[in-house]
Amino acid sequence: MIVIGERINGQFSRVSKAIDARDAKVIQELALEQTNAGAHLLDINTGPGRSDAPDAMAWLVRTVQDVVQVRLSIDSPSAKVQRAGLAECNLEPLINSTTAEQKRMETFFPIAREYGAEIVCLTINEKGIPNSTEARAEIAMVLLATAMDAGINTDRLFLDPVILPISAAQDQCPVVCDSITALRGLSTPPPRTLVGLSNVSSGAEERSLLNRTFLAMLLGRHLDAAIVDPTDAELMRIVKASEVLLNQRLYARSFLKA
Amino acid sequence: MIVIGERINGQFSRVSKAIDARDAKVIQELALEQTNAGAHLLDINTGPGRSDAPDAMAWLVRTVQDVVQVRLSIDSPSAKVQRAGLAECNLEPLINSTTAEQKRMETFFPIAREYGAEIVCLTINEKGIPNSTEARAEIAMVLLATAMDAGINTDRLFLDPVILPISAAQDQCPVVCDSITALRGLSTPPPRTLVGLSNVSSGAEERSLLNRTFLAMLLGRHLDAAIVDPTDAELMRIVKASEVLLNQRLYARSFLKA
Repeated sequence: MIVIGERINGQFSRVSKAIDARDAKVIQELALEQTNAGAHLLDINTGPGRSDAPDAMAWLVRTVQDVVQVRLSIDSPSAKVQRAGLAECNLEPLINSTTAEQKRMETFFPIAREYGAEIVCLTINEKGIPNSTEARAEIAMVLLATAMDAGINTDRLFLDPVILPISAAQDQCPVVCDSITALRGLSTPPPRTLVGLSNVSSGAEERSLLNRTFLAMLLGRHLDAAIVDPTDAELMRIVKASEVLLNQRLYARSFLKA
Repeated sequence: MIVIGERINGQFSRVSKAIDARDAKVIQELALEQTNAGAHLLDINTGPGRSDAPDAMAWLVRTVQDVVQVRLSIDSPSAKVQRAGLAECNLEPLINSTTAEQKRMETFFPIAREYGAEIVCLTINEKGIPNSTEARAEIAMVLLATAMDAGINTDRLFLDPVILPISAAQDQCPVVCDSITALRGLSTPPPRTLVGLSNVSSGAEERSLLNRTFLAMLLGRHLDAAIVDPTDAELMRIVKASEVLLNQRLYARSFLKA
């Protein structure tokens, strides 16, 4: 599984304060902590309601890259903030994200081409987030076709069926499970899939248990990538166990130590 | 998920000795411990190489039923041992198991009818355990059709795609995952599926981690039942979390305590 670290996000007050103060140490510690824990990419999000967002994004990218050589996921719905982050990336970036809304696709697919970035595509359109597997697959078809027309191959995309909090939309959890299989059936070879995992347990008591259980379910559907907290040791044990169970990592008696 | 407790099995030396001595206390403790931990059925297996197996099975069934009112899974490949156990069952029994071998189906489907039992059907035929999803589905079709001819409805069966130890057949773990989906696709409503979970980690170091990760993967495929160790607390937490994630158990902030 491609592990994308979620911790550098201005929605966390400690990160928000560090951005305000341009305190590099806090951000760099989070970057090192996550990559040491096994993150393959780091998601970078300046957080909500920030008037200096483009500058903050550029600073975050530079600050992280000063201590780790790792791919970054530029996490913003704003084209201006995306460009500010993408322009600073030393390694191939990931755009997080576009939806299937016409205006967004017209904005972000060209940006992805311009910066040679991979891109996360949410199964959301002008009507919102659909509540069935079939509707998610239909929106994904639009995303695949529009990307192709924009000169972006399917292998540059990650389709994201959008996890909702179990506290708000319990019936959507099994739908997301089934959606991974449905999205993978849309082309050959299967399009890659990604989720923002922690959303499932937003507001819940047993966050880590819900996160790791849901992640195992989705990995059993052959999910490719997830935005997670890689410093959750139990979660990362489940990731390793899943990889040996899926025959992606060679089994050894002491596979956890490998 | 239907939780079937695996602990009353003569392959464990403590159980084997208790059977030898007809020591009811050891067996009854195991029965209570498992049902208190959440088992819906208890699997009863006299263990290998026992000349008194029919008598031992009848004694085990009576001994367990003296302390708990719980359905039992009579676990033996011998028709004689099956009959000895089934004849003692107070509640609707489960036969564990038949294969798709012609001789076994001819023996066990009539026994299932005679005793009003549900029956586990392994996707094994005269050639052994196949190594592909497709071949498992083909064997399952033979099981469904033959059961139907014998007057047993599909809703009385549990199809079992046969979990092998990861240490011996790592490539079969993802095949079993995919097989759950394939088996469920064979009829409408989907046939029920079951696995003997712990086999996956036989000989492995991180048994509980492998067991619970694989179980979450299979539950994400809508597995119906599993033979497990219900006294593994971490495993049972994953079962509960899976049930809320699959929208089968009402979510509450403190769902673990419910």
